[in-house]
Amino acid sequence: MKVVTSLDIGQENLNFLRKEYPHIEFCIYNKIEKASKDLKDAEVFLTYGFDTTEEILNTMPNLKWIQCMSTGVDALPFKKISKKNILLTNVTGIHGIPIAEYVMAIILSHRIEIFQFYEQQKTKAWKRKNDFKEIYNKTITIVGTGTIGKEIARKAKAFDMKTIGVNTSGKAVDYFDKTYSACELNKALSKGNFIVQTVPLIKETYKMIGMEQFKAMGEDAYFINIGRGKTVDEKALIEALKSHVIKGAAIDVFEIEPLPKESPLWAMENALITPHISGLSNMYMNRALPIFEHNLKVYLGGIGEYINKIDLNKKY
Amino acid sequence: MKVVTSLDIGQENLNFLRKEYPHIEFCIYNKIEKASKDLKDAEVFLTYGFDTTEEILNTMPNLKWIQCMSTGVDALPFKKISKKNILLTNVTGIHGIPIAEYVMAIILSHRIEIFQFYEQQKTKAWKRKNDFKEIYNKTITIVGTGTIGKEIARKAKAFDMKTIGVNTSGKAVDYFDKTYSACELNKALSKGNFIVQTVPLIKETYKMIGMEQFKAMGEDAYFINIGRGKTVDEKALIEALKSHVIKGAAIDVFEIEPLPKESPLWAMENALITPHISGLSNMYMNRALPIFEHNLKVYLGGIGEYINKIDLNKKY
Repeated sequence: MKVVTSLDIGQENLNFLRKEYPHIEFCIYNKIEKASKDLKDAEVFLTYGFDTTEEILNTMPNLKWIQCMSTGVDALPFKKISKKNILLTNVTGIHGIPIAEYVMAIILSHRIEIFQFYEQQKTKAWKRKNDFKEIYNKTITIVGTGTIGKEIARKAKAFDMKTIGVNTSGKAVDYFDKTYSACELNKALSKGNFIVQTVPLIKETYKMIGMEQFKAMGEDAYFINIGRGKTVDEKALIEALKSHVIKGAAIDVFEIEPLPKESPLWAMENALITPHISGLSNMYMNRALPIFEHNLKVYLGGIGEYINKIDLNKKY
Repeated sequence: MKVVTSLDIGQENLNFLRKEYPHIEFCIYNKIEKASKDLKDAEVFLTYGFDTTEEILNTMPNLKWIQCMSTGVDALPFKKISKKNILLTNVTGIHGIPIAEYVMAIILSHRIEIFQFYEQQKTKAWKRKNDFKEIYNKTITIVGTGTIGKEIARKAKAFDMKTIGVNTSGKAVDYFDKTYSACELNKALSKGNFIVQTVPLIKETYKMIGMEQFKAMGEDAYFINIGRGKTVDEKALIEALKSHVIKGAAIDVFEIEPLPKESPLWAMENALITPHISGLSNMYMNRALPIFEHNLKVYLGGIGEYINKIDLNKKY
């Protein structure tokens, strides 16, 4: 049995797997191009997802299982996977901590106006101000109340923020003072000083945030997207930032990645662009690999439940 | 009875005080220079402290009480105050929230390497990295476990940081996993990934952080000073940053303020300079004024206890 990867899992992890599963052949590559000669025999494939096109799947006649080592599976060729009856699992649940750290970093940087002081330092300017707006008692509206949304809410609570969540049914969730259902989205957005978009990309979330939603947020709102670019109407976002419909935004995910040089977002003073890094940290593989190993045991032994088995119809 | 200020308390607050205490004459100025004609009759004086020199006190023969509307009273002429038997109070306790927000902003900005992405955006560079060091499970050593230190520790706990405190006796304090006494300072510093200096300036804290302490912190440590500049040997700090004895620093308070243009700190890549703003916010007067008003009632009625009466010998 051959397990092929298009991502580096680290030498230590590889040594562990080889020792633990001596009958499995692990072929580790850090790029799909390098893996090509082993793809035809691959029974199991570990990938971040974006490289797994329909064409690639056509070169893998023996593939039984894709372990996606990221959370967003939206780019995968679902029809093909479904037709070939391939098992698909991902690593949902491991991004809560790094993304919540990223989101609180963004909110607090905005709060202390950090770039202003960073620029002042370059000209040795000692220029004080005293009307900073604390985040104490402010409201954060988090769209999506899964692992990521909940971890953000937990941290926001330590700053005595009011936490509002939005999920499909409006069901109550830990660390949220109040939750609204998806059909009350605009109402929930209107209450937030900070709005965080965390939802995955599925049919129902495609461009769910458009001009109507930015207008609901209002001119003092700061918007943060760490979910998927296509859940936001990027043209509307650009217009909302340009016309000061909202105050500002930090954007980690985009309709097209890398964000094209032509995008007006790059040059906007009230937008902070980061290159899809909010979920990354040196702890990533330490949290993702145990999920793969658990699933490997289930796959080999046929006992127990897969973690994060993707419903190929729902796509999450 | 005349109350004179050298700081603006806001029109709404002034209206309230005038209505509540019609027999008191409130003379509100935003600068000591403007207040000069009223100083000779002032019985009560509200100040941020830095303008209250011995010369100024000589022009105030009727002064009975100084309400310092900041926390650091180190710049006040204590001998003169003591000799004239003037009551001195301050507003210690109101800075916890803004300063803890500032400190967490600094720590998290360092964690997500925010300035790198800010600079990349200027050149439209999409340059990812994945080895960010989470603050999850990292250690924060906070020197001083008063209101400010405790509020920082409380917030750090929501990030699952290990919290170490340093205080005079080493007594246990809420939100700190462990506390060390002042004589174990270097040991406590050696355990921190982040070190926050919060203590006031008194004889015992003068230059308490020098090269020996930076060496104890070590090359991966990030140092933050929001207490008083003179509690740190600034020359040693500059040397420690230059020689990478520590990794970096965010400095809000300095030996001389404004920080002189000649200071090498301005140009250091691993130092972030902010102009003594960590305690400031639009909530400041809302928290400071009730302390003055409480003390005013005690002063007028002779009943109850002053909040934050300064011991003129201990100077805090």
